[in-house]
Amino acid sequence: MKFDAKSLRFNPDGLVPCIAQDHATGEVLMLAWMNAESLARTLATGQMTYWSRSRQAFWTKGETSGHVQALVEMRIDCDRDCLLARVRQTGPACHTGRRSCFFTRLRDGMEEPIA
Amino acid sequence: MKFDAKSLRFNPDGLVPCIAQDHATGEVLMLAWMNAESLARTLATGQMTYWSRSRQAFWTKGETSGHVQALVEMRIDCDRDCLLARVRQTGPACHTGRRSCFFTRLRDGMEEPIA
Repeated sequence: MKFDAKSLRFNPDGLVPCIAQDHATGEVLMLAWMNAESLARTLATGQMTYWSRSRQAFWTKGETSGHVQALVEMRIDCDRDCLLARVRQTGPACHTGRRSCFFTRLRDGMEEPIA
Repeated sequence: MKFDAKSLRFNPDGLVPCIAQDHATGEVLMLAWMNAESLARTLATGQMTYWSRSRQAFWTKGETSGHVQALVEMRIDCDRDCLLARVRQTGPACHTGRRSCFFTRLRDGMEEPIA
């Protein structure tokens, strides 16, 4: 079936969440947001391009840091309201320098960094 | 540091997205939403409990289908606006009977089911 981005169920701001997962290790790296145009740019260029809600601007991951994400495979979910991008991550995905943004776990009511 | 759910950055509807990942295989199973109370219930019971936006009700995953998700580890991201739940999934996670909701990939402008 031909893919039509209009068939996605964007939220009232015109966005869908996109999970970035390391294609080789399966590690979940981050979650960011895409509008139809950032998805089109990502598919056309092979470089993950999100929509920055804080800056209200396109955000090509790594364009300043060099920590780019190359798209390996884009998937959509059954409800068509979430994307899963399997990526090849250069350097850390997180702005803190960690590989993944999910470096804090909850245990017994406490927050613990994951080594 | 003691975890306080009030420190999470909920959206205007009081929700954060929660990614469910198979703890053993790393497969991303689904994305759903949680409010503070569904997170509290999940942490207290060890059973993934989301907030259904369509039904506007708590949704203990698998309570009707039996396809429950046992929480293995809950993580929060650097921005405190997304959760990653590593889970032990009984049966399929997706209501279509697939293991994961992300069973459709985009390739060359086409949608393809993943075997």
